[in-house]
Amino acid sequence: MNEFDLIRRYFDRPAADPAVRLAVGDDAAILAPTPGHELLVSTDMLVCGRHFFADVDPRALGHKALAVNLSDIAAMGGTARWATLAAAWPELDADWLAAFAEGWFALADAHEVALIGGDTTRGPLTLSVSIFGEAPAGRALRRDGGRAGDDVWVSGELGMAAAAVRARLGQLTLPEAERALAQQRLDWPQPRLALGQALRGLASAALDVSDGLLADLGHLAARSGVAAWVRADWLPMPACLREQGAAGLACAAAGGDDYELCFAAPPSARAALADLGRALAVPLTRIGALTAGAGCRLLNPDGSDILLEQHGYDHFA
Amino acid sequence: MNEFDLIRRYFDRPAADPAVRLAVGDDAAILAPTPGHELLVSTDMLVCGRHFFADVDPRALGHKALAVNLSDIAAMGGTARWATLAAAWPELDADWLAAFAEGWFALADAHEVALIGGDTTRGPLTLSVSIFGEAPAGRALRRDGGRAGDDVWVSGELGMAAAAVRARLGQLTLPEAERALAQQRLDWPQPRLALGQALRGLASAALDVSDGLLADLGHLAARSGVAAWVRADWLPMPACLREQGAAGLACAAAGGDDYELCFAAPPSARAALADLGRALAVPLTRIGALTAGAGCRLLNPDGSDILLEQHGYDHFA
Repeated sequence: MNEFDLIRRYFDRPAADPAVRLAVGDDAAILAPTPGHELLVSTDMLVCGRHFFADVDPRALGHKALAVNLSDIAAMGGTARWATLAAAWPELDADWLAAFAEGWFALADAHEVALIGGDTTRGPLTLSVSIFGEAPAGRALRRDGGRAGDDVWVSGELGMAAAAVRARLGQLTLPEAERALAQQRLDWPQPRLALGQALRGLASAALDVSDGLLADLGHLAARSGVAAWVRADWLPMPACLREQGAAGLACAAAGGDDYELCFAAPPSARAALADLGRALAVPLTRIGALTAGAGCRLLNPDGSDILLEQHGYDHFA
Repeated sequence: MNEFDLIRRYFDRPAADPAVRLAVGDDAAILAPTPGHELLVSTDMLVCGRHFFADVDPRALGHKALAVNLSDIAAMGGTARWATLAAAWPELDADWLAAFAEGWFALADAHEVALIGGDTTRGPLTLSVSIFGEAPAGRALRRDGGRAGDDVWVSGELGMAAAAVRARLGQLTLPEAERALAQQRLDWPQPRLALGQALRGLASAALDVSDGLLADLGHLAARSGVAAWVRADWLPMPACLREQGAAGLACAAAGGDDYELCFAAPPSARAALADLGRALAVPLTRIGALTAGAGCRLLNPDGSDILLEQHGYDHFA
C-alpha cells in the first residue's frame, strides 16, 4: 500500500459530527462552528526521543498525542470538537500505524472528537496535533484571571509520569507495582475535560500541568500579574514518591507530563469545589494560594523556601 | 535567552484582528468565527532534507512554511485568517529565528493572517503549520464538484520549482538567469488567494498543485468521479523547460511544489475566466478537460498518451 492508501485505511473515517461538512481528502476541512461560541485552538508537537521513547507502544502514543492536546482544551474549560494530525514517519509500517490509530480513535471516540485532516511525510518520527474546541462566548478559562487571595488547586496526583521516565533512565527506583502504575500514568494520561467545563464560573484562572507544576503555575501567576506559593506537604502525590524525599518531590513539583488541571479560585468556591470533586470522582486538592507580587515559591510547613534544581522542563536547557 | 524568551521576542505579536480574543500564551487561542461562514482548516508538515535543503535561507523558509498552507486556503476559495506554528529546532539560533520570523510575518501581514499559537521543541528541524480560513457557508471550493465536460485550467506557470531542485541535485542544467528564477519560484511561492476567492461560483472544483499536476488533478478527478486529460503542449511552462524535452515536461507535469491552482469549470465560464485572469494579472491556461471514466492522462497533440516515470511525489516511494 502507498502513502495515500494507508492514510485512507487507518485515518479516513466518516465523521459522525454534522458540523464536519468535509473532513480528510480535500485541501482543507470545512467545519461549521457553533453560533454563540468561541473557537479554541491549540497545537502540540511530539518528537521521538524527547517526548517519548523510540520503543513506545504505538497504541499508547496514539492515545497520548491526542490526550495532551485534549488537555489544553480541558484547561480552557472547552468542549473538544475536532483535531488534525501531521506526522513524519521514518517508514510506513502498517501494523504500527494500525495500533497508533487504534489508540487515537479510542480516545477520540470517547470525547467525540473527529479527525478532520492532516499530513503525512517521511522523516524522523514527529507528531504534530492541532486541536479545536468550543466554549460559550466569553466564558473560556484563561491563565490571566487569577487574583491575590485566590486559592491554588490541582486535580489528581502529581509526579508519577516523571517518575516513570526517571525510573527508565535509572535515576529513580520504584517498586514493581508502582513502576507499572507510573508507566500507565506516563503513557495513558486522561484529559480532564469534564472538570474543565465544570470549572467555568468557579475558577478564576486555569492551565494544565504539562511542563511541571511550578513552571506552569509560574506562567499562570505571571499572566495574572500576581505571585503564587504552594506547600510541598500539600501536594497530592503517591506514598511511593513521598518516600523518595527530594527526588520524589522534584517529580511532583517540577517533573511535568501530568496533564492535571491547576487552577485558581476564590476561597468562597471551596465548598462548591469539594462537591464538584465528589461528583466527578476526581481528587481536587488545595495546594497553595496567589498573593501580591511576582514569582512562584515552593514552601515548607514553616514557610521557608524549598529550592529545586529545576522548576520545569526547558526543551533547550 | 531561553525558549520562552525567544518565542516571545520573535513570535508573540499582538494581533490586529479583533476576532482574535486571545493569541499566543495560554493553553489555547480564543477566536471568534465570523457568523454565516464556515471554517476551513488545513495542516502541512515540512521536514528538513525532504521539503527543503538544510542550508535554506531561513527567511525564505518562514515565507514558504506559511505560503504552502495559505495555498490550501486559496484552493478552497477562502479568506485566510489565522495560523499556528509548531516547530522542532536542533538548536535555538537567534539570528536564524529572527530571519525565519521576518519571512513568515512579511507574508502573514500581506494577507492579514495572525499567528495565534504554536509549540516549540528541540529536535530534527521540522515545521508543522495549521492554517484557518473562512468562506461563506456552503460556498467553499471543493475537489469533488467536477463534471464530465468541464474544462481543466491551471494558473501561472508549472515546473520551475521542481527544476530548481533537479538543478541543485545535478539532474538538470539551466542557464544562470533561469536557474535564479527557478530558485525564486521554489523558495518564494505566492499563494493564489485572490484567485481562489474569485473562482467561487465560476469553478466547479479546485485544488492546489503541490504534489505535481498529474497527481493532483488525479485526486480532483477521483473525488469528482470522472477522468481527466491534459495536453502536454498546452501546459504553461517557460521556454527553458520546453527546451529540456522529456525532463522539462516531467518538471511541469509531475514535479510539484508549484502552488498554482488547478481547477475545473464549465466551458460557459471561459469568457469570465479570461476576464478574471486579466483583472488579477494571473495567467489562466486551459490545459485539458474532464470526461466520463477514471484516471488522469497526459496527451500528445495527436491524442496519444505520454507516459511519465512518475505522476507525482510519493514521500515513501
